[in-house]
Amino acid sequence: MFEKILIANRGEIAVRIIRACRELGIKTVAVFSEADRNSLHVKLADEAICIGPASPVRSYLNITNIIAAAKVKKADAIHPGYGFLAENEYFAEMCATCGIKFIGPSPRSIQRMGDKATARETMISAGIPVVPGSEGVIENIDHALSVAKEIGYPVIIKAAAGGGGRGMRIAQNPDELRKEIMTAKQEAEVSFGNAAVYLEKYIEEPRHIEFQILGDTHGNIIHLYERDCSLQRRHQKILEESPSTALTPEMREEMGKIAIKAAKTVDYYSAGTIEFLVDKQGRYYFIEMNTRIQVEHPVTEAVTGIDIVKEQILIAAGEKLSFQQQDVKINGHAIECRINAEDPSRNFQPTPGRIRYYHAPGGFGIRVDSAIYTGYEIPPYYDSLIAKIIAWAPARDQAISRMRGALNEIKIEGITTTVPFHLKIMDNAFFKRGEVYTNFIQRRLLD
Amino acid sequence: MFEKILIANRGEIAVRIIRACRELGIKTVAVFSEADRNSLHVKLADEAICIGPASPVRSYLNITNIIAAAKVKKADAIHPGYGFLAENEYFAEMCATCGIKFIGPSPRSIQRMGDKATARETMISAGIPVVPGSEGVIENIDHALSVAKEIGYPVIIKAAAGGGGRGMRIAQNPDELRKEIMTAKQEAEVSFGNAAVYLEKYIEEPRHIEFQILGDTHGNIIHLYERDCSLQRRHQKILEESPSTALTPEMREEMGKIAIKAAKTVDYYSAGTIEFLVDKQGRYYFIEMNTRIQVEHPVTEAVTGIDIVKEQILIAAGEKLSFQQQDVKINGHAIECRINAEDPSRNFQPTPGRIRYYHAPGGFGIRVDSAIYTGYEIPPYYDSLIAKIIAWAPARDQAISRMRGALNEIKIEGITTTVPFHLKIMDNAFFKRGEVYTNFIQRRLLD
Repeated sequence: MFEKILIANRGEIAVRIIRACRELGIKTVAVFSEADRNSLHVKLADEAICIGPASPVRSYLNITNIIAAAKVKKADAIHPGYGFLAENEYFAEMCATCGIKFIGPSPRSIQRMGDKATARETMISAGIPVVPGSEGVIENIDHALSVAKEIGYPVIIKAAAGGGGRGMRIAQNPDELRKEIMTAKQEAEVSFGNAAVYLEKYIEEPRHIEFQILGDTHGNIIHLYERDCSLQRRHQKILEESPSTALTPEMREEMGKIAIKAAKTVDYYSAGTIEFLVDKQGRYYFIEMNTRIQVEHPVTEAVTGIDIVKEQILIAAGEKLSFQQQDVKINGHAIECRINAEDPSRNFQPTPGRIRYYHAPGGFGIRVDSAIYTGYEIPPYYDSLIAKIIAWAPARDQAISRMRGALNEIKIEGITTTVPFHLKIMDNAFFKRGEVYTNFIQRRLLD
Repeated sequence: MFEKILIANRGEIAVRIIRACRELGIKTVAVFSEADRNSLHVKLADEAICIGPASPVRSYLNITNIIAAAKVKKADAIHPGYGFLAENEYFAEMCATCGIKFIGPSPRSIQRMGDKATARETMISAGIPVVPGSEGVIENIDHALSVAKEIGYPVIIKAAAGGGGRGMRIAQNPDELRKEIMTAKQEAEVSFGNAAVYLEKYIEEPRHIEFQILGDTHGNIIHLYERDCSLQRRHQKILEESPSTALTPEMREEMGKIAIKAAKTVDYYSAGTIEFLVDKQGRYYFIEMNTRIQVEHPVTEAVTGIDIVKEQILIAAGEKLSFQQQDVKINGHAIECRINAEDPSRNFQPTPGRIRYYHAPGGFGIRVDSAIYTGYEIPPYYDSLIAKIIAWAPARDQAISRMRGALNEIKIEGITTTVPFHLKIMDNAFFKRGEVYTNFIQRRLLD
């Protein structure tokens, strides 16, 4: 087993990983930018080291500094979390070259799934259904226009290196496509350092359903069932749940098998996610694979009891999965609300600043993953996710009631957050009935 | 279903009950003494009403004021929590007389089980094994001496109206018995307004194992398996877990049946607990029944998924249990640490005062039930329990690691607490092996 793990991330996911390491008896090294000196992950880790200025490119995306930090601190493994370098195959390779275990899949799997256009082709070859779209990346505007004409409008433009909704744009007609493709490319370049985009048919009111995968380095791959991440705002997930109200037991069974097949196609190991869109007729289409731990992994942990981050670490250490597919059962229902430092009344503008007072909710079935505390100053440079509340209960309606209670209990003073917005969701009649889809927020809550 | 419940309690259990009511869509009324004006339960309830001065006798034990508060606030039910009036059959009767539903068992069950000496006789008649001891209450010193001579020293003196360890004393010989019986009677009088005591053979290094019972008003009684509450300091539980490492599956099965039999003997409904001592040979003896919700109920909730407080409310409203014995399964392992405002280095002296800073632990498998917040002033008049941390994991060793992490994370500044003491327990080799008994703390941790 590893003796010391460096966590190449910040915020709640860094705290999450520290907790897993601690439980496994592994020492932790936090890295931090100059803006993150007082962050909770720095306080909770056994050691901490500054890796550069506030700007992500110069700190959390700075491969040289991070590898050097691991060497200085004698870490034998690096956990990348999500975002930043989590899906950067070059970083994974550099770790291997420097004799540091990368806690994630192989660089080759990252590369094959990380480039979304390549992943799409790979899945088509494996006979896995995908949304109709461009074969590979879009070369130029004319190429985009001709693909769109063939598959029909509306179309969605996606960053090939993307994730987290950045670089995604919808076009209803050729004029919009011309305009949006430039914006999407710019966003993709800024967010991922790669301007490549691809096109897909835009499916109306789809569900976003993803399957959690766990694979070891001995060829065993299982899934931990699905998460319904249909509640999104501008392609950014804001609420996730497991199980999904949209899947029949047969669909669940079938999609789970497809997800394992997809992962096997790229010889996948570690934790990963196979994302699908499900249309109103119950047809499902592979959209992409995330080759990392995801923000919403706790809902799966809540219903399966399996600690996904601990499993990632055990897998990276070469251990075999200690359970089989038939051992994994869904128990009850879990919902996660992402609490962001954003102002819903001002178009979800980020609201960094000092948290004058923080009080976490508690009680039966409530889990809180956060990186904030009373007196913490949220820096303006990073993602606005500040806390996740996860509510578990035997049934969905009970989980909603429990979440409503927790949202009423949480106190975050000094900044505006999305807590009141989540309370609106909890009281929405469509949401309560489970009638959600990826543009639900726009349609039902932001009129 | 009830429209409004008055909670005749304070602290973490009042908060716990508010959460259950909220999830059931029931309005809540908090009651508070003049010393509890700024308490969390007052802030979280829909309404709040002052019921008297700081002294418990004049507020939380003041039946007239509490019933009047319920009437003024138009509450249709009262939840008594634990302690205070929870096992006072006169209070339960008064509620009924005033047309308010008492959320708990019938006054008759409370009376039959609440008087520990009577309960003992009842169990003997039902053929349930009990610890050898006095038949009924001790009349005078001579009676005590003759009983002790018959059953053999050491003996334990217990308050007939007792609970929570108060009024309990051990005597190794006649001299000690003469002295301790007076102290026990005084403590019993002060704590429960009833000086009656009884005698039992003192069993060396026993386990304290209790079975959680749930019964409805339609004659259905089931159990939710056991809690191991062996870790005590002066008969006060400080750490509880479920399942117990001391029970074989056969013992668990058998004791569960005995627990149900015991509850049926007194026509029990609502939540209750059948407490046993288990000696080194695995023999078990009924010691008492608690006719209320207990501090340690969350460990049972964690391993069964059943919300015991919600069930109490549903049962009081006349509903049938929605599950049967065979539906109740133990899933994983849970441990609860009671965090007290006490100084372990000064003989666990209470440490009331202002909490300058509070930060709750979080993450997977961690539940926090507390009534404190940053800036809260703990009054000196009540129980020193300020928070409960519950750690769940698939296996006991993992739950211990998780608890250790949470204990390291929790921040309570301004007062001394038992957090460091719990950390010592987590690192104790005997505890890790599950080798505990009721005087373990005294023997292994306070040398």
